[in-house]
Amino acid sequence: MELENIKDPSMLKQLSKTELEELASEIRHFLIEKLSVTGGHLGPNLGVVELTMVLHYCLESPKDKIIWDVGHQAYVHKILTGRADQFDTLRQYKGLCGFPKRSESEHDVWETGHSSTSLSAAMGMAAARDLKGTDETVVAVIGDGALTGGMALEALNHIGHEQKDIIVILNDNEMSIAPNVGALHNVLGRLRTAGKYHKAKEELEMLIRKIPAFGGKLATTAERVKDSLKYLLVSGIFFEELGFTYLGPVDGHDFDDLLENMRYAKKTKGPVLIHVLTKKGKGYAPAENDAEGTWHGLGPYKMESGEVVKKPGPPSYSGVFSDTLKKIAREDKRLVAITAAMPGGTKLDKFAAEFPDRMFDVGIAEQHATTMAGGLATQGIKPVFAVYSTFLQRGYDQVVHDICRQNLNVVFAIDRAGLVGADGETHQGVFDIAYLRHLPNMVILMPKDENELQHMIYTAFQYDDGPIAVRYPRGNGYGIKMDEQLKQIPIGKWETLQDGNDACILTFGTMIPVAEEAVRQLALQGLSVKIVNARSIKPLDEQMLTELAEVNIPILTLEETSVQGSFGSAVLEFFHDNDFHNVVVERMGIPDQFIEHGSVSQLLEEIGLTSAKVAEKITAMVPRKRQRA
Amino acid sequence: MELENIKDPSMLKQLSKTELEELASEIRHFLIEKLSVTGGHLGPNLGVVELTMVLHYCLESPKDKIIWDVGHQAYVHKILTGRADQFDTLRQYKGLCGFPKRSESEHDVWETGHSSTSLSAAMGMAAARDLKGTDETVVAVIGDGALTGGMALEALNHIGHEQKDIIVILNDNEMSIAPNVGALHNVLGRLRTAGKYHKAKEELEMLIRKIPAFGGKLATTAERVKDSLKYLLVSGIFFEELGFTYLGPVDGHDFDDLLENMRYAKKTKGPVLIHVLTKKGKGYAPAENDAEGTWHGLGPYKMESGEVVKKPGPPSYSGVFSDTLKKIAREDKRLVAITAAMPGGTKLDKFAAEFPDRMFDVGIAEQHATTMAGGLATQGIKPVFAVYSTFLQRGYDQVVHDICRQNLNVVFAIDRAGLVGADGETHQGVFDIAYLRHLPNMVILMPKDENELQHMIYTAFQYDDGPIAVRYPRGNGYGIKMDEQLKQIPIGKWETLQDGNDACILTFGTMIPVAEEAVRQLALQGLSVKIVNARSIKPLDEQMLTELAEVNIPILTLEETSVQGSFGSAVLEFFHDNDFHNVVVERMGIPDQFIEHGSVSQLLEEIGLTSAKVAEKITAMVPRKRQRA
Repeated sequence: MELENIKDPSMLKQLSKTELEELASEIRHFLIEKLSVTGGHLGPNLGVVELTMVLHYCLESPKDKIIWDVGHQAYVHKILTGRADQFDTLRQYKGLCGFPKRSESEHDVWETGHSSTSLSAAMGMAAARDLKGTDETVVAVIGDGALTGGMALEALNHIGHEQKDIIVILNDNEMSIAPNVGALHNVLGRLRTAGKYHKAKEELEMLIRKIPAFGGKLATTAERVKDSLKYLLVSGIFFEELGFTYLGPVDGHDFDDLLENMRYAKKTKGPVLIHVLTKKGKGYAPAENDAEGTWHGLGPYKMESGEVVKKPGPPSYSGVFSDTLKKIAREDKRLVAITAAMPGGTKLDKFAAEFPDRMFDVGIAEQHATTMAGGLATQGIKPVFAVYSTFLQRGYDQVVHDICRQNLNVVFAIDRAGLVGADGETHQGVFDIAYLRHLPNMVILMPKDENELQHMIYTAFQYDDGPIAVRYPRGNGYGIKMDEQLKQIPIGKWETLQDGNDACILTFGTMIPVAEEAVRQLALQGLSVKIVNARSIKPLDEQMLTELAEVNIPILTLEETSVQGSFGSAVLEFFHDNDFHNVVVERMGIPDQFIEHGSVSQLLEEIGLTSAKVAEKITAMVPRKRQRA
Repeated sequence: MELENIKDPSMLKQLSKTELEELASEIRHFLIEKLSVTGGHLGPNLGVVELTMVLHYCLESPKDKIIWDVGHQAYVHKILTGRADQFDTLRQYKGLCGFPKRSESEHDVWETGHSSTSLSAAMGMAAARDLKGTDETVVAVIGDGALTGGMALEALNHIGHEQKDIIVILNDNEMSIAPNVGALHNVLGRLRTAGKYHKAKEELEMLIRKIPAFGGKLATTAERVKDSLKYLLVSGIFFEELGFTYLGPVDGHDFDDLLENMRYAKKTKGPVLIHVLTKKGKGYAPAENDAEGTWHGLGPYKMESGEVVKKPGPPSYSGVFSDTLKKIAREDKRLVAITAAMPGGTKLDKFAAEFPDRMFDVGIAEQHATTMAGGLATQGIKPVFAVYSTFLQRGYDQVVHDICRQNLNVVFAIDRAGLVGADGETHQGVFDIAYLRHLPNMVILMPKDENELQHMIYTAFQYDDGPIAVRYPRGNGYGIKMDEQLKQIPIGKWETLQDGNDACILTFGTMIPVAEEAVRQLALQGLSVKIVNARSIKPLDEQMLTELAEVNIPILTLEETSVQGSFGSAVLEFFHDNDFHNVVVERMGIPDQFIEHGSVSQLLEEIGLTSAKVAEKITAMVPRKRQRA
């Protein structure tokens, strides 16, 4: 079958079991082939081929609702809902999104990207159904990793209480992005080895019938054993406690097993959890034997050999961060690192290899990670929480209420700050300055390059006056020379990179090269433009701002973050609060919209954060009289 | 004993059981008497008298760490740690804080206010202890309500995994602020009625020994029954699953029972959960028989009769909000209300009385509430999530990722926006504009009075173009006439309340009367100042701003929110983005610091948000030449 000919998942219902198996095989081949060119989340999708097919076989999408937690495992769903022909554009600018996208298909009923949201969405959809009196089935597919997120647990609790008809598919692949953390994982581990629920139930019922009648206390106990029969069942007890009917474990690559359980779940009243065991990377040896998680999500690879295409390049910012932590940790016992299920992405796995007792991977739990860091800080430990900009959003209240309010010495190493590219709008790290800058006691820094990063991490670690965030971009540095000796960067002091007297660009991080290129172009027009590395985003360099206001040259703020409420706004605030009302300030940054996927350079082009636009802006700002040309 | 003479909790260790009981009685009397004047959280504190005494009896605070979740139940702790003499100032300006406060006492090792943070803090402190090799005991006291918060579940999961020596006291008072919601509550309910853990264990062990040996399958099952003995124990199974040793249920008003279990817990390796049953309001009949939760936290009352002193006054903003929802809901079936464990505070209890099927109380779970609202919205339901400004911080990522990004029609009714007074810095609602304004698709409104509130709620409900937030203050309206007919307020349009041509104040909500008073004072100096009700905070009224820039009179923005990144910054952004570089704009708002407890008027005085300061500012802004005097 040509996968490109699939227009609608209802075609599945006509297929025999053999045909289903053939189709599964074709889908796997298709994914392995297509992703070898585009890259993408291969492992997770190979793991859910049969599961996705069975969901569409048993359900009537889009009337029935299928919600994909996190969403990077929805490729098979995209193929079955008529989008196979777009896979050449996967995760590319204006191409197929790597996550569910409502604008792409009516079958994508809920958009995801961050983890642990699916159960809440399912609860909302089920409540809406019951209010309207319709009868659609609502299914949430959630991984064992995402289940450790607090909001998923909040939702399980509420769904169990409300007893809504919702089917939760627990996609237990024994290996989420990082090895799973937490007690919940141990529960799942016991379930996996405990055998099938129904069989155990039968056996146990027989056992109970054979228990002789006891008198007095023991009779009561025998009664209790009977009453609490379900507690006897190792399998599912955790979920049954929360009010779910537990089915499984189910072989996630066995159509019959999946079908039988899905049919049973559809007939069951109240919430049902089907525990499905899948293998990430199923059907492709390199991805199946993936100890390091390489195949979770990756760039292009050679299909035959499974060799990953590596672009040689300078060290990544994450790598420099991790190396720096190691360097500091060797000298200072107070340093402890924390990650929320991102040891690989943050490169803290390298740190943990050297300091296993001083690294905590808390699971997908940014709230807990933040406040736990606070607890450590109260006792004189200096925690460094490495977290992606977009994921720290989940810990916002904890940053406010626990860290900033108590003014605790916690270092936030904010990775993936700025545009991230192919992961798209759910992952862009463009709000962190706006959501942190208004918090009392918070310091925010961003380095111009990887060498400055190491010094900033050191500075942040040495800082003893409250919380401090160092944000740095996704990807690689410039390959510049790294200083041997770590040193402190003065907080609240900027650095003039280039002098000039017609205008001034205040910028930081990734926008510095854009500014530099613009200034080269402007020089050709005879304009001399100052460039400042405004690396201390909070506090500002008030002395330099005062001097700039006094000479009163036009100022452009340039940042790869939300233009509302971020650095540029802080600069405006400073001038007006200090009675410099007539300084010409203009701001460039991410406009008031969500930015979709694409390469970072394409996205910057789209939103006008380019050297050409910067040059244009400056030209318009500089009064004609000052132009020498 | 004079409670005021207690300087240190170690004095408890000298007391006999009779003396402990006498002291408990004195503490109760003290609390009932003192709080009858000051108000405060009476019910929760009467419930933990014995528990707090036993903790300090068994532990060596501050070496041992006691962490109070939420923290409004720490009054007994404050008495025992030498602060009884300050209770006349409780929750008053510069007086004793109603929550733990590190600056007050070395015995307050962690500050709280928001719920569900204690376990994460305990994990941090225990990890620090183990890294340092010290041996202090770490205890977290958490209520059954707070346990439903996602971050508490994240922490339970992590603590269970790490097997740290932490004692969690589950203070199960069967009634948190609102009747408890969720499946977890059912688990606790079963534990309560299931009798004591240890007894059950003995009985069951005997039972197991009497099971005859079976062959084949059944033998296996018998083995499994034995292996999974703990699963037989109704009591504690949930927590045991997560890796905790479960002790209880314990009578929280019985010294012996409490002492025995605390001692056992201290000896036990790994995390222990002691399930303590307490009665809110214990020892004071009006608070014990408190069906409506009045005695959870309240103002002054008559000690003898338990009659609550009610100040007559205009309807509260929350009340007007709830009445308006009812009015709309009668006409429009799409309206559904959501609260996160605050049915009383938000007055949604009144809504639920009329529309029980259209109100969801999800427990202390703002993350789930937000995303569930999104799920409802995708299906054509129009959810209204009523939530305090400070608590919506917990749902920030969900607002970004699920609601704004998908541009879903969710109404956020943001209660307690602005300063809240006696609850202090953990509860001030001063960040919401800064944390919402930078989000694409978000609309933010604030009414000038209760009549405008009802129209805004109606407007928000009718709005069909994405998320919209209506923020309103704690407390009562002005008692003005309410329109019969609900009408829509144009979004992005402001209202000129008073004309003037020397300066202009752009303000909204609670600051309008302050502006009006200032303008009256300025009129005496011969200045004519325009006042604008800038009720649409996002989007701004760009037409009016353009007109103001063209006449170029000095502008003061005035808001009871964080001055960084809020409304005033938006105004600055507008002027600079539209090339009005020389408009004189100054901003007044909450400075870059956390604001402690006190009456709202005292706090406003402290931070200079008064009519006198506004008048002073305006006077300085208006060029001398324009002054007519």
